[in-house]
Amino acid sequence: MADARFSQGSRAIIFGIGDELLRGDYPDLNSSLLARTLLHQGWTVEEIRVLPDDLPSLADALRAAGERVDLVLTTGGLGPTDDDLTRHAAARAAGVELNFEAGAWQMVLDWYGRSDRTPPESNKRQALVPAGATPLNNTHGTAPGLRMALGKATLFCLPGPPREVGPMIDGALMPWLEAHAPGGQVLHTSRVFLASLSESQFADEAGSLLERHANALVGVTAQAGRLAVTITARAADAQGARELAEGLQAQFLERFDRHVYSTTQPSLEQVLGQELIERNMTVTVAESCTLGLVASALGAVSGISSVLSETFCTYSNQVKAHRLGVDPRVLEQHGAVSEPVAEAMALGAAREAGARLAVAITGLAGPDGGSPTKPVGLVCFACALDGRVLSIESKRFAPAGRNAIRTWTASRALHLLLLAVRATS
Amino acid sequence: MADARFSQGSRAIIFGIGDELLRGDYPDLNSSLLARTLLHQGWTVEEIRVLPDDLPSLADALRAAGERVDLVLTTGGLGPTDDDLTRHAAARAAGVELNFEAGAWQMVLDWYGRSDRTPPESNKRQALVPAGATPLNNTHGTAPGLRMALGKATLFCLPGPPREVGPMIDGALMPWLEAHAPGGQVLHTSRVFLASLSESQFADEAGSLLERHANALVGVTAQAGRLAVTITARAADAQGARELAEGLQAQFLERFDRHVYSTTQPSLEQVLGQELIERNMTVTVAESCTLGLVASALGAVSGISSVLSETFCTYSNQVKAHRLGVDPRVLEQHGAVSEPVAEAMALGAAREAGARLAVAITGLAGPDGGSPTKPVGLVCFACALDGRVLSIESKRFAPAGRNAIRTWTASRALHLLLLAVRATS
Repeated sequence: MADARFSQGSRAIIFGIGDELLRGDYPDLNSSLLARTLLHQGWTVEEIRVLPDDLPSLADALRAAGERVDLVLTTGGLGPTDDDLTRHAAARAAGVELNFEAGAWQMVLDWYGRSDRTPPESNKRQALVPAGATPLNNTHGTAPGLRMALGKATLFCLPGPPREVGPMIDGALMPWLEAHAPGGQVLHTSRVFLASLSESQFADEAGSLLERHANALVGVTAQAGRLAVTITARAADAQGARELAEGLQAQFLERFDRHVYSTTQPSLEQVLGQELIERNMTVTVAESCTLGLVASALGAVSGISSVLSETFCTYSNQVKAHRLGVDPRVLEQHGAVSEPVAEAMALGAAREAGARLAVAITGLAGPDGGSPTKPVGLVCFACALDGRVLSIESKRFAPAGRNAIRTWTASRALHLLLLAVRATS
Repeated sequence: MADARFSQGSRAIIFGIGDELLRGDYPDLNSSLLARTLLHQGWTVEEIRVLPDDLPSLADALRAAGERVDLVLTTGGLGPTDDDLTRHAAARAAGVELNFEAGAWQMVLDWYGRSDRTPPESNKRQALVPAGATPLNNTHGTAPGLRMALGKATLFCLPGPPREVGPMIDGALMPWLEAHAPGGQVLHTSRVFLASLSESQFADEAGSLLERHANALVGVTAQAGRLAVTITARAADAQGARELAEGLQAQFLERFDRHVYSTTQPSLEQVLGQELIERNMTVTVAESCTLGLVASALGAVSGISSVLSETFCTYSNQVKAHRLGVDPRVLEQHGAVSEPVAEAMALGAAREAGARLAVAITGLAGPDGGSPTKPVGLVCFACALDGRVLSIESKRFAPAGRNAIRTWTASRALHLLLLAVRATS
């Protein structure tokens, strides 16, 4: 899709900063996230550079970037230790002083104050701000970010931990990007979030919808058994851009129908949790091989306790019988990983928890315990609603490892609950 | 820690090539893998650069790298389409011709021949080889790699798909690295994994251990409430390098003592799970605000079902009383988030599950439900062993969002279980 690049888009460079990235401790996920964000706001990312915690080379690289492009983003190197040098490098590259600033220190104090703590002395480093720079509030961590002029560019310095980067993108970078859209053109981004579909199934079924469009970028990313489809179109005015993007979005919605769980919320559990809470529909889960994974996804939804009082993590046959009332003869006859056991678990969990809706999972996550008739990757699901069984199914996931199987299973279970909730309205 | 980098180590630059990386379709995993590989062979990776499929900028960047360092690695841009330009850029950077070469074409023919196919005409592009370069056999795909001289450096061009890169590293890059070990020096890396410690607490308590060492790189990375400390030293021989690294490691072990959960295994739950399984110590968990997060971490350990039959996810007071036998008067008097309730939950869970060891968690993950006396972020923990309470504690985590609080809480609970297991041996 090289020809679909928005060639008139203003130019940006992204820096990932930290020795740990150059040691290969983990991949540079922040730069990838920032690249996606910029693309969809009409920017052209010319380069991603991963650099060490080394003051002279950081300062040189930042200075050169500030002369070449319009926007420079960095993540990392804002921590409290001696090897956190991004602030120093930014000041040196811009040729300005680095000063302790009360406003930034107040942000650090506020962060610690929220939990009645006092920051250690080393945190004072995080209140150093290049002259003329604006400190950016960090809602999810101690290090304030920075926004400042650098040559002909604007520089944003964001923290390194991904859970801090996301909120700072939303809170500080996005508003700036929206106010500085390149080339007088207007972008519109529409999304479609899909569950229970692999990337290759999606590519096969999407067919012509994935052809290169003169003016709509379609991107798809897969994570934890879910797919995010992003459609970005641009035009001279907002209405034109929206029509282009939403036109294509409508085709995806039609083609993928039951797989679509949202067009706005990437988190399947948040979508499910909200629909449960809105309908005041009580819910529970009985988990064997996923042992708490589905429960913990639901637990991520704030307010879920209004419809969820307990869930069941039942590994052994004895516990399945004792806690959920699964008939020991059914366990013996069909084995723990079987549709009749899944069914009895779902009915039992709903009854025990006094919930209207329940999903049950029993499967083989491996690596051991598989057999020719019941291989690793086999998972049986059942959904129960108001004391009746709503759906039973068996899936055979690829033997891609215990974690992958558990993750895919949990994702499918959440999707089954969502389909059940939606079928009742 | 910049000056502690191995200045005598031979220097390398890694390039990730492809528009899709700059669009953020996925992170640059290849460069991360190559960086790890080089580190352990004694090389210093000065930079990772992600560049677009653009001939002039690729050629310029490669030429500059060939003048600056000793080894240049690229992945991507070796495919059969017009936007695959790495071969052309390498030839231009080295100032040599790009020629169709029969040997490279034979590699492409052989690859297709293995599945009785004939390559399309477009694949001839993959047999273009810069003058003087050696084509590298690709055992897992169609694109041959390249090894060639580039300025004062050696250049390796590897394909983009990760499943092709790994085998080419093993088959072509590693033998070259082993024959060209930098400076005749040997490296040794030691690690320390810590729990229940923030990065700033660590920095404060580590103090002089984090001073810049003449010959030991110390790096620390934080994830999900755990810290990984990496110590890399080098010397003329293996013993010298090991002594240096392990000497410093021993000081960290002494200073951080109870926080250390492993020197080899980065996953706290795997360490805990293995120790439980080895001791055949039965375990259970009673979770309120983490609802399944601790259970699901334990469920990631293969074989854990030999010591774990069930866990409890108990949100409501009623369920805490009914399932775990928590006295309703205690709930009423102290509130659900209190040490007496945590204690009763731990004892009740152990009794109900027939387990020797139990941890219980009750806390406020927010965002709602906090009060001045019981703010969001307050979590009470209790551990029970053989029917007696082993430890009770309250923690007040920073109000960094529901997910962060739940993650930190789960990590602390796993660590409490590990401390309990180790205290019994």
